[in-house]
Amino acid sequence: MMGKLLRFSIFGESHGKVVGCLIEGMPPGIRVDTTEIKKDLERRWGIRESSSSRREEDTPEILSGVFRAHTTGAPIAIVLKNRDAKSSYYEEIKYTPRPGHSDYTASVRYFGYNDYRGGGFFSGRLTAAMVVAGYFARKVLEREGVRVRGYIKRIGDIEANVSLENLFSSALLCPDEEAWEKMKRRIEEIRKEGDSIGGIVESVAIGVPAGLGGPFDDDLEGELSRAFFAIHGVKGVEFGAGFRFSVMKGSEANDNLIVRNGKLETNENNMGGILGGISNGMPIVARVVFKPTPSIYKEQKTVDLRRMENVSLKLRGRFDTCIVPKAVVVIESMMAFVLADHLLRRYSYLYFMNDKI
Amino acid sequence: MMGKLLRFSIFGESHGKVVGCLIEGMPPGIRVDTTEIKKDLERRWGIRESSSSRREEDTPEILSGVFRAHTTGAPIAIVLKNRDAKSSYYEEIKYTPRPGHSDYTASVRYFGYNDYRGGGFFSGRLTAAMVVAGYFARKVLEREGVRVRGYIKRIGDIEANVSLENLFSSALLCPDEEAWEKMKRRIEEIRKEGDSIGGIVESVAIGVPAGLGGPFDDDLEGELSRAFFAIHGVKGVEFGAGFRFSVMKGSEANDNLIVRNGKLETNENNMGGILGGISNGMPIVARVVFKPTPSIYKEQKTVDLRRMENVSLKLRGRFDTCIVPKAVVVIESMMAFVLADHLLRRYSYLYFMNDKI
Amino acid sequence: MMGKLLRFSIFGESHGKVVGCLIEGMPPGIRVDTTEIKKDLERRWGIRESSSSRREEDTPEILSGVFRAHTTGAPIAIVLKNRDAKSSYYEEIKYTPRPGHSDYTASVRYFGYNDYRGGGFFSGRLTAAMVVAGYFARKVLEREGVRVRGYIKRIGDIEANVSLENLFSSALLCPDEEAWEKMKRRIEEIRKEGDSIGGIVESVAIGVPAGLGGPFDDDLEGELSRAFFAIHGVKGVEFGAGFRFSVMKGSEANDNLIVRNGKLETNENNMGGILGGISNGMPIVARVVFKPTPSIYKEQKTVDLRRMENVSLKLRGRFDTCIVPKAVVVIESMMAFVLADHLLRRYSYLYFMNDKI
Amino acid sequence: MMGKLLRFSIFGESHGKVVGCLIEGMPPGIRVDTTEIKKDLERRWGIRESSSSRREEDTPEILSGVFRAHTTGAPIAIVLKNRDAKSSYYEEIKYTPRPGHSDYTASVRYFGYNDYRGGGFFSGRLTAAMVVAGYFARKVLEREGVRVRGYIKRIGDIEANVSLENLFSSALLCPDEEAWEKMKRRIEEIRKEGDSIGGIVESVAIGVPAGLGGPFDDDLEGELSRAFFAIHGVKGVEFGAGFRFSVMKGSEANDNLIVRNGKLETNENNMGGILGGISNGMPIVARVVFKPTPSIYKEQKTVDLRRMENVSLKLRGRFDTCIVPKAVVVIESMMAFVLADHLLRRYSYLYFMNDKI
Repeated sequence: MMGKLLRFSIFGESHGKVVGCLIEGMPPGIRVDTTEIKKDLERRWGIRESSSSRREEDTPEILSGVFRAHTTGAPIAIVLKNRDAKSSYYEEIKYTPRPGHSDYTASVRYFGYNDYRGGGFFSGRLTAAMVVAGYFARKVLEREGVRVRGYIKRIGDIEANVSLENLFSSALLCPDEEAWEKMKRRIEEIRKEGDSIGGIVESVAIGVPAGLGGPFDDDLEGELSRAFFAIHGVKGVEFGAGFRFSVMKGSEANDNLIVRNGKLETNENNMGGILGGISNGMPIVARVVFKPTPSIYKEQKTVDLRRMENVSLKLRGRFDTCIVPKAVVVIESMMAFVLADHLLRRYSYLYFMNDKI
Repeated sequence: MMGKLLRFSIFGESHGKVVGCLIEGMPPGIRVDTTEIKKDLERRWGIRESSSSRREEDTPEILSGVFRAHTTGAPIAIVLKNRDAKSSYYEEIKYTPRPGHSDYTASVRYFGYNDYRGGGFFSGRLTAAMVVAGYFARKVLEREGVRVRGYIKRIGDIEANVSLENLFSSALLCPDEEAWEKMKRRIEEIRKEGDSIGGIVESVAIGVPAGLGGPFDDDLEGELSRAFFAIHGVKGVEFGAGFRFSVMKGSEANDNLIVRNGKLETNENNMGGILGGISNGMPIVARVVFKPTPSIYKEQKTVDLRRMENVSLKLRGRFDTCIVPKAVVVIESMMAFVLADHLLRRYSYLYFMNDKI
Repeated sequence: MMGKLLRFSIFGESHGKVVGCLIEGMPPGIRVDTTEIKKDLERRWGIRESSSSRREEDTPEILSGVFRAHTTGAPIAIVLKNRDAKSSYYEEIKYTPRPGHSDYTASVRYFGYNDYRGGGFFSGRLTAAMVVAGYFARKVLEREGVRVRGYIKRIGDIEANVSLENLFSSALLCPDEEAWEKMKRRIEEIRKEGDSIGGIVESVAIGVPAGLGGPFDDDLEGELSRAFFAIHGVKGVEFGAGFRFSVMKGSEANDNLIVRNGKLETNENNMGGILGGISNGMPIVARVVFKPTPSIYKEQKTVDLRRMENVSLKLRGRFDTCIVPKAVVVIESMMAFVLADHLLRRYSYLYFMNDKI
Repeated sequence: MMGKLLRFSIFGESHGKVVGCLIEGMPPGIRVDTTEIKKDLERRWGIRESSSSRREEDTPEILSGVFRAHTTGAPIAIVLKNRDAKSSYYEEIKYTPRPGHSDYTASVRYFGYNDYRGGGFFSGRLTAAMVVAGYFARKVLEREGVRVRGYIKRIGDIEANVSLENLFSSALLCPDEEAWEKMKRRIEEIRKEGDSIGGIVESVAIGVPAGLGGPFDDDLEGELSRAFFAIHGVKGVEFGAGFRFSVMKGSEANDNLIVRNGKLETNENNMGGILGGISNGMPIVARVVFKPTPSIYKEQKTVDLRRMENVSLKLRGRFDTCIVPKAVVVIESMMAFVLADHLLRRYSYLYFMNDKI
C-alpha cells in the first residue's frame, strides 16, 4: 500500500490471469473514461522496434468503485487481463536464476514458492497497474491545475536537452528530436549486438502549490523516491541539481528568492522545487536512472541452484533492448500519485486554517 | 513515524528545550549503554575546524523503555537537552527567508507558526535524534552480524577510493587518507572564501542476509532512500552503480552469479546488494549526495515577505562549511534503522517457515 | 486496509460486477483449496427460511498470489462474481433513505456519488469478502494449532448455553439445540410480522499462545473490536465477562492464576483470554451484538431529500429477518484475521529472542 | 501510534522518570495553555476518598512543538514528571503475578524484561498522557463546535439517568446527583470490604457533523472502540442502544428520519449517532465498561513462577476502589482524539469537493 489518504496496491503476475490495482481514498465524483486509461497504457509501449513482442492492447476492466462513469469514493479495483503466455520456457530457468533479475532474491524471499514464470509479481508487466493508478491521481491533480510530464533524459551516452515549454507541448517520449533520433539509432545498434542499455527518465510537475510535503516521514522527496524505487530497474533518484550538488558551492547552489510579477519565485531551480521536504511552488524536477534490461542474448554465468555449480546461461525469447522508453509514463504515474496524496493531505490543513491554496 | 515493526519518530527544535526521539517496537532485553550512544553522537561532530561553533557534548537522557540498563520492549523516549542558544538574531531574518534553507517552505507549510529560530524542527540538530535511534537499530543488527559503515566519498571534486576492508577497519571519516587530507584542505579554502561545498556519503552494510525487503511497498531501496531523504540537505540517492547504469550495457551491468566457497555470491556488486527490492546477500552499497550548506557569508538575494520586495541578505554567525563530515554517522544510522526493521519483519516469516536465516 | 503484517482490503458493490478482497503479507507455501473457501462461504447462508432470496453459490476466483495451489507470498486478489440483480427498485428509494440503513450517511460521506443500489459498498454482500480473507488467516493459525469458532449466543430473548467442548464439536450455528430450535421459531414468528430481530454472536479462539497483542495501539481487544465493527450492523463488542463486569467486585472478577498439569492457567476466564491487551493463553472469548436488520415490511417514516419533507416508506423485496445466523462465520473470519496478523508479529520477536512460542 | 492525520503515541512507566505523549500532525496556530491541561488532568483524580494516595499534581512540561504559546505544526512532546515512588514492594510480587493484572501477560510478551514496578508501561498512570493528547484534540474540535463530555453511567448496580442538557451543563462526574451520592456511598462500602467494583462510563459528542468515518477500516465505531480498549480495564464498548439491540425488533430499533426546523434528524438516537460507520449528525453516544480494579486487599491465589507452585497473595499499598471516576476524562480524551483525526481527514475531501461541512 502506497500513500496515506490516497492509497494504492498492485497485484497480479506476468503469466497469471491478470495484473491489477486497488485504489482507496479516491475522492468521489470524478469522471472516469476507460478510453483515456487505455491511452495512458499505450504510452507504456515505448518504441515498437526495440520492444519485446508482447504489445498488449490492454483494456482496463473496472471491477468496483465507479458508478455511472464517476468515482463513488469506494475502493476502485481494476484489472488488465493477461493474454496467454508461453510459460514452459521458464521451467528451464527455474533453477538457474538470470543475472540482474530478481529470480534469485524472489526465490529466497518467498522460500521458493514465488511464481517465477515471466518474473511473476516482479515482472515489468505490473507497471501497467501503476499507470492505471496514475490515471486516477492525475484526475485529482487536474482540479488544482497540476500537470506531470516525463521524458527520456538519457540513453547510454546520449543526453537530451529539453526546456519546460518543449516538454509540456511535445508528444514525443523525448522532445529533443535530434537526441531522440540518436537514441533510437543507439538502441537499434545495441539490439543487434544482443545487448541492452540503461538510461535516465526526467519527470517534471508544474503548478504544484507551495506547502506540499513536510519534514521527516512527510518528506516529499522521500515519498517520491520510495514510489520510484517501487519500479524494478530503478537504481537511483535525484532532485534538481541532484548529484551535481556534490561539486557545487553554496553560492552556486542556492536558489535566490525573487519577486516576479508579484509572485515569489526563485531565480534558478537547483532545488528541483523542493526545500526541506516541502514544495516551494517551482516545478518539481526528478531524475530516475534505470539499469539496462537484464535480459540479453549474450552468454552469461550463473549458478544451478540444485547442484550449486557454476553454469552458463543463454536466454531465448524477445526482450526490450531498453526499458526506458516504456518507463516514462510509469514514472509520471508514480509522481502523480504521490503528489495527489500529498495534495489531499494538504487540503485538510487548508480547510482547517480556512485558507486557500 | 518511520518503520513498521521497529519504528521511530523525532521531535524537538534547534532553540527549544530538547531534541529527542521515540522508538517503538524495540525488542526487549538489549543492553543499553549511554556512553556508547554518546560515542555515536561524537561522530556527528565532523571536523572541528570547519564546523559551526556549537559542539554540543550531548548527554542522552533516557526517559522511558529502559530498565536496569536493558530495553523493556516499551516505547523508548530519549532526549538531548539543548544549550542556551542566542535566538535574537533569527528575528532579523524572520521575514527574509535564507536562500537554500527551508525558511520559506516551512513558513508556508505551517502558515507562519513554525519555530523559525535556528531552523526549528528543520534544523540539522535533529539529526542527533536520528543517531540515537540508529544506536538501537545497530543493537538489533549486531545479533545477526550485520555491520553498517559510512564514509565521505566525495567533497567537491575530490573523490575517495576506499575498499571494503579499509572501510571496516579504519576509524577515519574518509579511510582514503590522501583524499581525506585534500578534502580537509579544500574545506578550509572554501571556508576562507565564505562559501560552502557539497559532497557524497557512501554507506555500506555487510552481513545482511538475502531476503530482506520485497516488491512495491516493501522495496528495500525505496525504504532506504525515504529514510535518507528525511535528512535535510540530501538531494539524491543511488545504489550500486547508480547513475552510472545509464551508460552501461546489460552485459556490463549484470552481476553474474557464482559459487564461492560453497556460497552463492555475485562476481561484481553493481546492484549494490539489492535486486527486485530484496537483499541478495552481497554488501548493500548506497550513495547519498548532500547539497552545500545553504548558510554562506556571501551576499545573497532574497525577498522581504512583508513588502514583497527583492532585498539583499548577508548572514552572520558560524556555519558548517561542509555538512558532509557530520552526516556520515547520520546516514549510517538511517541505514541501520531500515535494515533492523526489515530484519524483524523477515524474522516473522522465517519463524513461520521454521527456517533459519 | 486491516492488519500490519498480514493485511487485507475489500472492494466491490452489491449490484456491481464483483465483491472481492486483496490480501497482502500472506506467508508463502500454504496450500489453497477453493472448495474449502466455498464451504466457508456456504456457512454464510444462515437459515434458508428466514434468509433473503439471494442465496449466491459463490465460486471464488483467485486472480493472483496463488501458484500451483499454494500461496506465493505475493498479494492475493480474489473475486466473487455477482449475479444479475434488479437495481431498478433502488431508484425509488434513492432520495428517501431507509431508516437504520447507511443510505443517508453514505450519501453525505460521498457527496451523493455512492453506488446506492442494494447498499453498494455498504451491502452485507461485502462480508463474503471478509470470509474469504478469513480462510487464509485460518491457514496461518492452523500451523500454530489455533482454532476459531463462533455461534449464535442470543436471538431476541432466547439465549444459548454452550460449553467449549460442545462448541468445537458441533456443526450447528447454535450448538445448544433446544435454544436453536426456539431461535428458529422466533425468527419465523418475527418474519411473519414483517419485522426483524437482533442478536449476539459469541466467538471463541482456542490454542492461542500467551503473548499476542500488547499495550496501546497493539491492544488485542482494540484490534479485534475494530475488526468486528467493520461488519455493518455491529453495535457493541465485549470480552470475557464484558458488561457484566460493571456489577462485579474485584474478588469475583479476578481470574486467579493456577498451575494445572504443569501449565499456567486461570481458574475462571472472566478476562476472556486477554489481560493488558495481551493474550494469556486461555480461550479468547468475544461477544458481538448485531442490531435488527433495518429492512422491514412495516411502514416507516423517512424524509424525501429533494423536498426535505417527511414521507412514509414501505419497503418491498425479500430481506433477512435476522442477520445473526449469517454473521457467525463473518465474526469468526475477522477474529481469525486479527489473531493471524498478531501471531506473525509475535513470531518476529520470538525469532529474535531465539525462543519458542 | 493512534490516528492517521492527527496521531499520538504514549511512553513512560509508573516508576520511571516520566510519562508522556508525542502528538504528530497537529494543525499549527492553536493557542496552548498549560493551566488548561492541568485542569483536564485534575479531572483524572476522581474521588479523593476512594482514590489511591498518589494524587499527582501534574505539571505538564512541553518539550517541543509549541512556540510562543501556539502549536507550530511540528511534533509535540509533553512529559509529566513522576514523583518518587517506592518500588521495593514490587520486588516481592515480581514472580507472583497479581490476578487480574497484566503482570503475567506483560512478562510473557516482553520475555521478562518489562519494568514491572507499579505496572510499568501498563500502569493507569499512562492515562494521564492520553488526557494530554485529548487536550489538543479538543482544540481541533472546538473550531468545528464539537463538544465531548462523559459521565459515570453505572457503578455496580447503581445506574444514573442523565439527559443531554444535564450532561453538558453539570460539572459533576455523574450529573444525576441522587445516583452520584449512592455511587459514592457504595464505593465507600466496597472500600471498607477491601474489595473493588466495576462500572460504566458513557461519553457523548455533540455538534459532530454528518459524514465522519466510513466503511471498513475507516469505521468510526471501530476506531473509537480501538481507542477505548487502549485504556486498561476496558472490557466492552457499545454505541447507542448497544447490547440492548439483541432484544429489539427492527421496528423498534430503526431511527426514523425526520425534518426538524429544516434540518435532517432522527426521532430517536438508538444508533448513537453512527450508521454504516459514519456519523449522521446526531449526538455520538458510546458506553464503555470497566472491570473492577484488580488490586484488592482480600487474599487471592496466584502462582509462584519460579517454582510453578500455587501460592496465596495478599496485596499491600493503597488502591483505587473504583477506577471509573478517574476514567471519565480519559474516555472523553480518546473520543475527542478519534473525532479530531476523522474531522481532519474529512476536511481534505470537503476542500477538494469545494464544500462546506
